[in-house]
Amino acid sequence: MKLYDSRQAPNPRRTRIFLAEKGITLPTEQVDIMAMQHKTPEYTAINPLQRIPALVLDDGTIITESIAICRYFEVLQPEPPLFGVGAKEIALVEMWNRRAEINFFSNVAAVFRHLHPAMKELEVPQVPAYAEAMRPRAIWFLELLDKELAKREFIVGDRYSVADITTLVAVDFMKPAKLAMPEGAGNVKRWHAAVSARPSARA
Amino acid sequence: MKLYDSRQAPNPRRTRIFLAEKGITLPTEQVDIMAMQHKTPEYTAINPLQRIPALVLDDGTIITESIAICRYFEVLQPEPPLFGVGAKEIALVEMWNRRAEINFFSNVAAVFRHLHPAMKELEVPQVPAYAEAMRPRAIWFLELLDKELAKREFIVGDRYSVADITTLVAVDFMKPAKLAMPEGAGNVKRWHAAVSARPSARA
Repeated sequence: MKLYDSRQAPNPRRTRIFLAEKGITLPTEQVDIMAMQHKTPEYTAINPLQRIPALVLDDGTIITESIAICRYFEVLQPEPPLFGVGAKEIALVEMWNRRAEINFFSNVAAVFRHLHPAMKELEVPQVPAYAEAMRPRAIWFLELLDKELAKREFIVGDRYSVADITTLVAVDFMKPAKLAMPEGAGNVKRWHAAVSARPSARA
Repeated sequence: MKLYDSRQAPNPRRTRIFLAEKGITLPTEQVDIMAMQHKTPEYTAINPLQRIPALVLDDGTIITESIAICRYFEVLQPEPPLFGVGAKEIALVEMWNRRAEINFFSNVAAVFRHLHPAMKELEVPQVPAYAEAMRPRAIWFLELLDKELAKREFIVGDRYSVADITTLVAVDFMKPAKLAMPEGAGNVKRWHAAVSARPSARA
């Protein structure tokens, strides 16, 4: 088994944090995005979508998409559960993970991809007007989340889950995207300090 | 239990097809998007993100996001399995469902939302340059998928799954987005005819 990883991108970090929470270590190979290694014929043969991470199983099966790789290990090693337990919690983790991805992470990524000079050759064409349109939506989501986190410790109830991982990675991705945390947002800041203090956050 | 649904949008159709495949019927209320019913204070109290569908459980818990609602029913009624069985198949269904969402469905939606005159008051501001940038990516994904579907019956192996549902809904969404199926693509057309012929496709 081998994990293709990149320390330069936010999605592979989701998988690394997940594996750290599970206590799973894997043989890993770094793919250098700035050197365009994900666009080489070799890596394209592994993932035609040229995205990282990718997990190659011993039987040759290739699993891409950070959350798909996480789900693979959730089934193999259910403890500690990171996708919820029971129909309702499983649905709420899926809901918040998707809310965080669709309404927050993807908007932070849009600001980074369509405005940052470093992305000029990777996001073609850059559409700055799209980044500007998504910027207030990212901030709006944090304001919504702040009200939610007044009621509970983690994104879903009292148990750390993959929804915390996605939201943590997206909050930290605000820095390269040059987005500032909104004024106030005390609950988000409390939650962010707590999840950042877990050893997995350094994975 | 009550499902807030809309026949005017592609995401709620994913949930309806899923429920039809499971043979589950639910009390349903239609939300009229063109009449801006999803922006009313009443619906915003159900889903602050103002998106459809939303499922209200008998204990008052609200589950939003079409795939989160699907997952709730997958746990309650595992047969027929639509998210895969066993670690590898579960991971591959998640992978293809996400590939279809991120690289295809969201790009078709971008073309619709940022170009269609009907979306002028719902997608503010429309950024036509973003739609034009995403248009070739949607078509490129179908070309990739065509090569994959040369090897198997459904999106993941020989079993119909939620990845087929997402891809079907996205292909059908090409029509209002004014996107044409690429020349050739015989495998995608064969697959599309087969999944469209299932009774669930009319749900």
